[in-house]
Amino acid sequence: MATEQVPPIADEMPTPVPDAAAPDRVEDDAVHADDRGYRQPDVDVDALRALLDGRYREVRDLVRTNLAEHAQVLLDEEQMSTADFRERVKDVVVMMAGTGQTGMGFPQEYGGGGDIGASVAAFETLAYGDLSVLVKVGVQFGLFGGAILQLGTKTHHDAHLADLVTGRTMGCFAMTETGHGSNVQALGTVATYDVGAEEFVITTPDDASRKDYIGNAAAHAELAVVFAQLEVAGERHGVHAFVVPIRDGGRVLEGVRIEDCGPKMGLNGVDNGRLWFDGVRVPRTALLNQFAEVTPEGRYLSPIDNPNKRFFTMLGTLVQGRVCVGGAGINAAKVALTIATRSAVRRRQFEAVSPDEEQVLLDYGMHQRRLLPLIARTYALHFAQEVVAAQLHEVFSGPGAGEEGSDEHARRMLESRAAGTKALGTWHATRTIQECREACGGAGYLSENRFAALKADTDVFTTFEGDNHVLLQLVAKGLLTDYAGEFEDMDQLGMARFVAGLAVETVVERTAVHKLVQSVRDLLPGGDTWDQEAGLLDPNYQLAMLRFREEHMIGGVARRLKRGVDQGMDPGAVFSRVQDHVIAAARAHTERLVLEAFIARTASLPDGDLKVALNLLCDLHALTTIEADRAWFMEHGRLSSTRSKAISREVSALCRKVRPLAVDLVDAFGVPEEMLRSPELLAWGE
Amino acid sequence: MATEQVPPIADEMPTPVPDAAAPDRVEDDAVHADDRGYRQPDVDVDALRALLDGRYREVRDLVRTNLAEHAQVLLDEEQMSTADFRERVKDVVVMMAGTGQTGMGFPQEYGGGGDIGASVAAFETLAYGDLSVLVKVGVQFGLFGGAILQLGTKTHHDAHLADLVTGRTMGCFAMTETGHGSNVQALGTVATYDVGAEEFVITTPDDASRKDYIGNAAAHAELAVVFAQLEVAGERHGVHAFVVPIRDGGRVLEGVRIEDCGPKMGLNGVDNGRLWFDGVRVPRTALLNQFAEVTPEGRYLSPIDNPNKRFFTMLGTLVQGRVCVGGAGINAAKVALTIATRSAVRRRQFEAVSPDEEQVLLDYGMHQRRLLPLIARTYALHFAQEVVAAQLHEVFSGPGAGEEGSDEHARRMLESRAAGTKALGTWHATRTIQECREACGGAGYLSENRFAALKADTDVFTTFEGDNHVLLQLVAKGLLTDYAGEFEDMDQLGMARFVAGLAVETVVERTAVHKLVQSVRDLLPGGDTWDQEAGLLDPNYQLAMLRFREEHMIGGVARRLKRGVDQGMDPGAVFSRVQDHVIAAARAHTERLVLEAFIARTASLPDGDLKVALNLLCDLHALTTIEADRAWFMEHGRLSSTRSKAISREVSALCRKVRPLAVDLVDAFGVPEEMLRSPELLAWGE
Repeated sequence: MATEQVPPIADEMPTPVPDAAAPDRVEDDAVHADDRGYRQPDVDVDALRALLDGRYREVRDLVRTNLAEHAQVLLDEEQMSTADFRERVKDVVVMMAGTGQTGMGFPQEYGGGGDIGASVAAFETLAYGDLSVLVKVGVQFGLFGGAILQLGTKTHHDAHLADLVTGRTMGCFAMTETGHGSNVQALGTVATYDVGAEEFVITTPDDASRKDYIGNAAAHAELAVVFAQLEVAGERHGVHAFVVPIRDGGRVLEGVRIEDCGPKMGLNGVDNGRLWFDGVRVPRTALLNQFAEVTPEGRYLSPIDNPNKRFFTMLGTLVQGRVCVGGAGINAAKVALTIATRSAVRRRQFEAVSPDEEQVLLDYGMHQRRLLPLIARTYALHFAQEVVAAQLHEVFSGPGAGEEGSDEHARRMLESRAAGTKALGTWHATRTIQECREACGGAGYLSENRFAALKADTDVFTTFEGDNHVLLQLVAKGLLTDYAGEFEDMDQLGMARFVAGLAVETVVERTAVHKLVQSVRDLLPGGDTWDQEAGLLDPNYQLAMLRFREEHMIGGVARRLKRGVDQGMDPGAVFSRVQDHVIAAARAHTERLVLEAFIARTASLPDGDLKVALNLLCDLHALTTIEADRAWFMEHGRLSSTRSKAISREVSALCRKVRPLAVDLVDAFGVPEEMLRSPELLAWGE
Repeated sequence: MATEQVPPIADEMPTPVPDAAAPDRVEDDAVHADDRGYRQPDVDVDALRALLDGRYREVRDLVRTNLAEHAQVLLDEEQMSTADFRERVKDVVVMMAGTGQTGMGFPQEYGGGGDIGASVAAFETLAYGDLSVLVKVGVQFGLFGGAILQLGTKTHHDAHLADLVTGRTMGCFAMTETGHGSNVQALGTVATYDVGAEEFVITTPDDASRKDYIGNAAAHAELAVVFAQLEVAGERHGVHAFVVPIRDGGRVLEGVRIEDCGPKMGLNGVDNGRLWFDGVRVPRTALLNQFAEVTPEGRYLSPIDNPNKRFFTMLGTLVQGRVCVGGAGINAAKVALTIATRSAVRRRQFEAVSPDEEQVLLDYGMHQRRLLPLIARTYALHFAQEVVAAQLHEVFSGPGAGEEGSDEHARRMLESRAAGTKALGTWHATRTIQECREACGGAGYLSENRFAALKADTDVFTTFEGDNHVLLQLVAKGLLTDYAGEFEDMDQLGMARFVAGLAVETVVERTAVHKLVQSVRDLLPGGDTWDQEAGLLDPNYQLAMLRFREEHMIGGVARRLKRGVDQGMDPGAVFSRVQDHVIAAARAHTERLVLEAFIARTASLPDGDLKVALNLLCDLHALTTIEADRAWFMEHGRLSSTRSKAISREVSALCRKVRPLAVDLVDAFGVPEEMLRSPELLAWGE
């Protein structure tokens, strides 16, 4: 497939004579000056795949091998009952654990691999396969195991890590409550310290406080990490985490009630459940005490005085989950694009170029426009994800990692970046899989062609590990306050008041992007011509556009918030009215980070065809991004209507250049053939 | 729920003093002059529902009653095996047929209702329930029954209609082939006339020509209407339809091979299958001979000489299927919006206005922006659908209906309008259901909350009964050629050559929109100020914008096609490059029709609160539509950046005005409570 033959792109046409009847309306999609002398690069698929796999190629290949070995699970998902499929998924997870694949992030003394970066790489790659397996792995090793590792201390590690790394002990992560989806600090579950018994008593006070959507809870978990409001001697200390046994040998323990969440849109191999606790007693040592301790005699101790800060420091240690979900979304999109692209160079529809033969789908301009920018964006997000995964590894593996007092600013930047990338990566998955399904027509609707499961399973990615809209609000808050507060602390009243307390200029100067934008100003002249000085394919121009948008949007949000509050409006109402701008600003910020990552990675390559090919993709991504928001750039005087139209033409021209590379570009993702299924769409063996 | 209490919208603020630091950047989302003196209308839910139900209220209520009675099928879909669920769906369909609901479109002498409009209304309403039932009804009564009715003559009617109307005889519609999805004229199945035996011999020559995705084929159909290339005495006459028995008492007949399409993303209550014919013999009378006949001695006769025209006349009689699917998509969106909107006035998230209580989701600006324009668009599409259904009724029930020679232009306009509305209605369903699922967070992912089935089942609506992109190309072709050719005849080479043969001015003058736009020119002054003369809330302004866009886009496509061909480029290659403009033009055309329908319906109402409320919605829809494409309007000199920003502010302001009406607006859809399920999201009985 890698050397698939395609017909040459249609001949160039001479520059057209302007049409006198409508001189300013004639746009020409066919002629493109840059096409002259253009030589199509040859893509070395293996080299490109090595580049994408990066330093964790070996780990990724281990996962690919495991996926291929257990490929049957993709069929089992269609054919088994839910109960059987849950067992099957559990078995696959335990078998994969046996290869070391799922324990990369745990310390070696407990059977882990001691490499957080490798752990993210392994998880991401798992997204090429059945996503119930992925999510079950995420629940067991990421959420449950991660909480024991990050929030617990040696006692807990010694007690649980070795068994959970092998999958002998299954656990769940009981944070979310029915009535408290995104606002974790408002949880209702209570853990009261009984000084006489030296025990905590865990209680669910009402149905809004039942634990909900908890993966592994309905069937398999023996232990739960339960988040609850800690109460000691009548005083509340905020949310803390406790290790609570909920089953023993499969039997639900007394005081615990478990209900199955029932059938879901997808991920039915994961047993999501609801939990209620009716005065369940656990020993004092059940408190995961990395950040707080209750002494036997009932004294509450914590190295972090501020309860808010303490809570969000705890939450912050769980950032790896978001990094992983973002990466999984991006990789699920790769599966869909591989199938849709390969199928689009096989399927023919209508006579177009020749009266005797129908035209291959990917030679249609519209089909190129539908798929190729999505491939480009997938590459962009891949490199952005690489950056955030590397930062995660750095922050959690570097000197002093895990200690309170390690570089807080770096942690908040990481949390913000992880949140933004998760939001963009998972929305990209939803959109890409949908477009690929439609591009494959009726065949895309058959389960054997993979889109059914991909769509149903990934749909909740935009919601779990933080609802995307809420995450983007957090990103915006960090930008507005220059990361002054804890990342997760989504107090809208406080944020509006904080911003309102500053002079507008101060707000803008305090924003994290201000310094960056100063350099944009230095780079590009002001006034109406500033955007005409640079070529569309100049990465400095592309970046300057995204940086300008980002700063302008953040400044705009700050001004709006401040003006509303200054004028006596209720801060919450002001926030509500500005909310879409808040989210747009955070999105603009993350888009800039994504483009920067792509440009930087491409720039780092040695000259050659691979660099030429990735530059094409990078240009396609950058200009598609600007094109998508060209209205905003025009409204804000940074794009003339002439140049805006030129960008659309350039995007189409870039699509035509990327077209002959398309199959190589998706093959370089290295999705195992067994994971693609789609026997007829791809016609294996032909 | 209809009188749900909501807090008043936040107080107005005084006009802000322009911010000296950034005078041209200050936009104010809070202050809105029109707000002054605005009195919120009271929506009479029953009256609004009566308005939406229109002249077919009784039929719609019959379907609502039937849906409620068989509500258990929504649960069965989750709990039964595929084989059992298929039987269950079949039984429900037959039971519904017993109430007369599904036979509205058939002549009374065969047990039908003799009312095509009622038949569309019944089908649309069925989309409130399980969509396998809907699609099974569509296959049996719309496609199979419709083909017998429209393509057959009295012999076929007498033989089959009475039994198919009751569901005693189940049938399928075997048109689509694996290798010929959208290009029906290129089908491979052959029907050869054997003059000696006075029989047709039906043969599948290769796997690309197997019938594919055929609903009712895998389990239930006894008869198939098979589309095949007719060959008489060595001469091909194009595609014709034949009634072919494929099962007898459940046993597959000799020469017929049937394969199950296997699990699908959704609609698993419908038994889709593949069919191969190996020299299957049917009598001469098996040819559905409304438009062509083969005499016993092997003479081919048809009142329509041109084979192309004959074929597309046949296809044209099946337009009802598209009208129905468009309506089903719109109504499926209503279910999602009802759940998401009602849930958004119950669920709270984060403290915003008050430090003591979390804010209701729908009071957040972003949540309003996500849901309310979708409600507005649903109303717009509802009224547009009402128009196309009325036209269908008119064309097929009026004098001379069904006869060759009845007003061809009216038929082509109907076919075009049905295609465009189907595309917009089904894309709207996909987008709306997705947004509603995400707006309901994790709860939206549980099957009991309906989105799982809604999403999975409707996903293929954008593909079946004509892929949306292909349909929009057909619409554009009609516009470019002023409906000179048959609607379905998607010969891109011919179309490009046809356009190229005209002078550009001729092309534009020939387009169907030209006359309309002339009136825009008369209405609005030219030059740079034309768009500043009218208020944003003036429907004439809104319509003028959409009409301008439509004409300009069609003219642009014509010029591009013509220039490319004139310059010697391959017509197919020219088409491919212009394809995204072609589709954009068709979309612009249909958007204009939709807005016209909404404005006309609203204008026809007597003064009063209902009219005020629908005017708000209509403004919201119109301005959201312009806002979504504001880049184009700016690029083409029809929107200044100032006015563009004003439109975005107005959309937000309209959202705030619609917010208090939201629950009433969705309640007026009249989705039966049993169809909503979602016990926790909606908290019945609270």
